[in-house]
Amino acid sequence: MTGLSHDRSITLSVDAMGGDQGPDAVARGVIRFLETDPTARVLLHGRREALEPHFKNSPLAERVEIHHADDVVTMTDKPSHVMRNGKATSMWAAVDALRDQRAEVCVSCGNTGALMAVSMIRLRKAEGVNRPAIACLWPSRNPQGFNVMLDVGADIRADGDDLLAYAMMGASYARNGLGLSRPRVGLLNVGTEEHKGRAELKAASELIAAAAERGDFDYVGFVEGGDIPSTRVDVIVTDGFTGNVALKTGEGTARLISDLLREAFMSSALSKVAALMTRGAMARLRTRIDPRQVNGGVFLGLGGLVVKSHGSADATGVAAALSLAAQLARSDFSKRLASRIAGVSALHHDAPKEIKA
Amino acid sequence: MTGLSHDRSITLSVDAMGGDQGPDAVARGVIRFLETDPTARVLLHGRREALEPHFKNSPLAERVEIHHADDVVTMTDKPSHVMRNGKATSMWAAVDALRDQRAEVCVSCGNTGALMAVSMIRLRKAEGVNRPAIACLWPSRNPQGFNVMLDVGADIRADGDDLLAYAMMGASYARNGLGLSRPRVGLLNVGTEEHKGRAELKAASELIAAAAERGDFDYVGFVEGGDIPSTRVDVIVTDGFTGNVALKTGEGTARLISDLLREAFMSSALSKVAALMTRGAMARLRTRIDPRQVNGGVFLGLGGLVVKSHGSADATGVAAALSLAAQLARSDFSKRLASRIAGVSALHHDAPKEIKA
Repeated sequence: MTGLSHDRSITLSVDAMGGDQGPDAVARGVIRFLETDPTARVLLHGRREALEPHFKNSPLAERVEIHHADDVVTMTDKPSHVMRNGKATSMWAAVDALRDQRAEVCVSCGNTGALMAVSMIRLRKAEGVNRPAIACLWPSRNPQGFNVMLDVGADIRADGDDLLAYAMMGASYARNGLGLSRPRVGLLNVGTEEHKGRAELKAASELIAAAAERGDFDYVGFVEGGDIPSTRVDVIVTDGFTGNVALKTGEGTARLISDLLREAFMSSALSKVAALMTRGAMARLRTRIDPRQVNGGVFLGLGGLVVKSHGSADATGVAAALSLAAQLARSDFSKRLASRIAGVSALHHDAPKEIKA
Repeated sequence: MTGLSHDRSITLSVDAMGGDQGPDAVARGVIRFLETDPTARVLLHGRREALEPHFKNSPLAERVEIHHADDVVTMTDKPSHVMRNGKATSMWAAVDALRDQRAEVCVSCGNTGALMAVSMIRLRKAEGVNRPAIACLWPSRNPQGFNVMLDVGADIRADGDDLLAYAMMGASYARNGLGLSRPRVGLLNVGTEEHKGRAELKAASELIAAAAERGDFDYVGFVEGGDIPSTRVDVIVTDGFTGNVALKTGEGTARLISDLLREAFMSSALSKVAALMTRGAMARLRTRIDPRQVNGGVFLGLGGLVVKSHGSADATGVAAALSLAAQLARSDFSKRLASRIAGVSALHHDAPKEIKA
């Protein structure tokens, strides 16, 4: 993340329920976040009795408004069920505060599918967007430390127009979230040669190439799974099925290696001493690849800014998601994105063929 | 890998050309392999002048037969071009030695798409297989040290019947390659709940569940990207597009972490000393996750056994691919697989509906 600026007060609407670690982790995350962000305010939605004790006698209490909600969306609730029966849930209330412009951004650790469904019906899709997407940050070798990948799970399919919209949205996110003036965008495929991959990807590749100039990004063409953390690219575009598998595969690989590393350090008395000697450097390494530090999938293409924190996030993870949400809200990212998408969409679909030349 | 048995002499047909590191790396890999496998023989296909010097005055020379080939398949050749014009290439000759039963297994580091195309037209598909697949070994937490994933890039799509065949083939590979009597098979998806993912995956899931008993495996249902290296499963089934992205994403993540780890150890004088102190444990860790040690994508579902070594494999990688090929050839894996697939295929497609109940 680029340095945070706290000059503008903003309000975050936070769903405190539904994460794997319960409302306590969210409340502690809110406290940690507010301690580092002196001008932010939080509307906290959930069971009052679980939340209030955390802010009793705290100087932070004046920046937190607790809104009681009776119901909770669980991780196993189907999105369709929540859409019909979820009006009394903390998730619904958190999204509605954004809809009613009482907050500038909404954050939840709850059920991803349900959060997307509620966000779609309450906030509507942005003009020119058919399928909203979830974008994540991926540790990379680039100077900014992270690359952006989308969609990582909003929808299980995407056609050429959707992938074009993802390219525009991802580039805008990289500009506002990572401070890159002209992001490099790549389309995920099984090879970098033009003849590789599915036919629909070739069509999407041509659409994205044609939109690069107007979208203010560079299109680098097809990229492979190994390029996701590379310096070839800043934004990786793919459908939500492939992106979700890639994200979880990367996280799983990182976890496996961390575990093996810990075992290696514990394997002898000598290596235990070595572990102590490298503690600082290893802590920096862990921070660099820790999913909690880059926590927050951003929902793009909606009529409002929603950040999904990892379901298993602890207080550190929740605080990271809140910081990301605050930064994006302060950058007016949502409005800039909407105007750009609407512009390209008009160009692509509505312009008379003769004028294109 | 389980312990190798060298009791039966076998012959490997090896394409020495087309890898990123050239014929020298392959020749050195062959030497390394033959030194550890005292009964194996190798037919080596490629440019005689590049290969012969490696075996001059070597006691191994009597187990190596060099077959000169004028042409080479390059990494950028299109498979369709090689199918029409590739008869004089070392790759074609290597596959034909298997077809003519002069060898029991074929190994190449060359262009994957071309190798699959040549293998398909020269060896034909096995009975009951519509789409052959490439299976890889993935470092895992299981006692056997590796899980099997397929397809990792033979084809970019797969329907329900293909995924069923992959489950059968993957289970057979796990039995013969990893020594698991009853492998656990999972189908890769974006969530483990039944309602998640594409409709075609639900259909495939039912097909695989119904075939588990006859296929002698346990079906664990849907698995996610994070489960690939886990103890939940031994065999991960997916289409070749998703599998290829997952494989390369995992490799890329492992490379990134290795690089960051090296930087961490070089960051101070103290950490450099620590690196020396943990050298043994770190070397074991590296071996565990080094793609070269588990080198070899196995082509399943063809009328003969073909192993694809990584294009960038050095001598260590080539030797690992040759060892894997020799082990599978000695296990009569190819024949066992063919009879099992043909059996399930007959059950699934030809049995009268009434009998199924």
